[in-house]
Amino acid sequence: MTIEERLDALEGRLRSAEDRLAIMDLVHSYGAAVDTGSAQVTADIFTSDGVYDVDTGLLAGREEIAAMVEGDPHQGLIAHGCGHLMTAPQITLDGDRATVRSYSQLIVRRASTDGFAVARLTANQWELIRTDDGWRVERRIARMVDGSAEPRDLLRPQ
Amino acid sequence: MTIEERLDALEGRLRSAEDRLAIMDLVHSYGAAVDTGSAQVTADIFTSDGVYDVDTGLLAGREEIAAMVEGDPHQGLIAHGCGHLMTAPQITLDGDRATVRSYSQLIVRRASTDGFAVARLTANQWELIRTDDGWRVERRIARMVDGSAEPRDLLRPQ
Amino acid sequence: MTIEERLDALEGRLRSAEDRLAIMDLVHSYGAAVDTGSAQVTADIFTSDGVYDVDTGLLAGREEIAAMVEGDPHQGLIAHGCGHLMTAPQITLDGDRATVRSYSQLIVRRASTDGFAVARLTANQWELIRTDDGWRVERRIARMVDGSAEPRDLLRPQ
Repeated sequence: MTIEERLDALEGRLRSAEDRLAIMDLVHSYGAAVDTGSAQVTADIFTSDGVYDVDTGLLAGREEIAAMVEGDPHQGLIAHGCGHLMTAPQITLDGDRATVRSYSQLIVRRASTDGFAVARLTANQWELIRTDDGWRVERRIARMVDGSAEPRDLLRPQ
Repeated sequence: MTIEERLDALEGRLRSAEDRLAIMDLVHSYGAAVDTGSAQVTADIFTSDGVYDVDTGLLAGREEIAAMVEGDPHQGLIAHGCGHLMTAPQITLDGDRATVRSYSQLIVRRASTDGFAVARLTANQWELIRTDDGWRVERRIARMVDGSAEPRDLLRPQ
Repeated sequence: MTIEERLDALEGRLRSAEDRLAIMDLVHSYGAAVDTGSAQVTADIFTSDGVYDVDTGLLAGREEIAAMVEGDPHQGLIAHGCGHLMTAPQITLDGDRATVRSYSQLIVRRASTDGFAVARLTANQWELIRTDDGWRVERRIARMVDGSAEPRDLLRPQ
């Protein structure tokens, strides 16, 4: 290979590694954003018309996502003590698009006894797009793991 | 350094970073593979004669691993609602071989009440090898964390 | 760009990716270090005068951190069966310094029944510095998630 060819190859491979790290970071960022009540930061994980399709209700666009963060049910959870833990994202890159499959957990402080409960285990599929501001989520589908086929279909390796 | 030397150094360092990302991805992939009942995908995480040495029974080779995924105990767990969460792999690279130490958890839906239980916390040691198809697991040793020395020995920093 | 400029850019970008991977590894390493009772390894995650400021007591310097690992409360936890799970570190790089925000969990074996309990969910903020021996922790602040503002302040996106 010529020097030019080696540089081209390095730039392409490094960009893929950087994409993986940036996407991992974006998926992980949902936890601290939502648990600190950072409504705008949470909404900005998504594209302006991004969709968060979760079994507790579909949220379309940044305004609805921010409103969920600021709403009473979520604020009650924060005041009680909770953590949204994002686990082990599996990233499939395709140029300026990416798909992520991952688990997330909602951990909630127990009121009556010591310790914490695993309130939810959720299967997630994320569709991402590269924008001028970096990677953003176009659609996140999230379904609680309840033994039914739907959450498994979100996680199934292609 | 000459341009050639800088290119050589970059290629070597980038390859190590790519190896880390690929190995992280492989270890994480066990969760969705086994939880979706993807027997062949689960088996293909291992080399053809790879060993999954877990306290519930040693599985030798891809056929035995695929049979575990398709067997009644695991299928019952899937139908009930479960998640194998792979956490924080610690990777030691050594050319075409690698060792990984990590925790994993089995989270299971509670039948009687709401929420989920942490059914197992497991210590893991993985021996990996680079093949023509990418990194594969030659041996995974997994022991439930029960206070005994064996799971600690798997996780102990070298 | 000239070949020199392309090499310079590649070297800088690769160093950032390597820093992220190394910092992720360092943060993750706390779990196996402390759970295997590896007092010196745990202490060496920190700088020589590093501080681990946790709600159960502030530890200043490697000697105090090693003494905590070797102390009766922690040794009792190890003998009973426990795991410190480090989750989803969010890394902000700034040259030779870095800040990490992350969750951690303490999982403890249940004595009376089967399975494990989530004994603690903890919010963490880490201040790191690049040393001649690699990245080290200057200060880790850790607060249990109890609904109060302090743990949220540690996790809040900047």
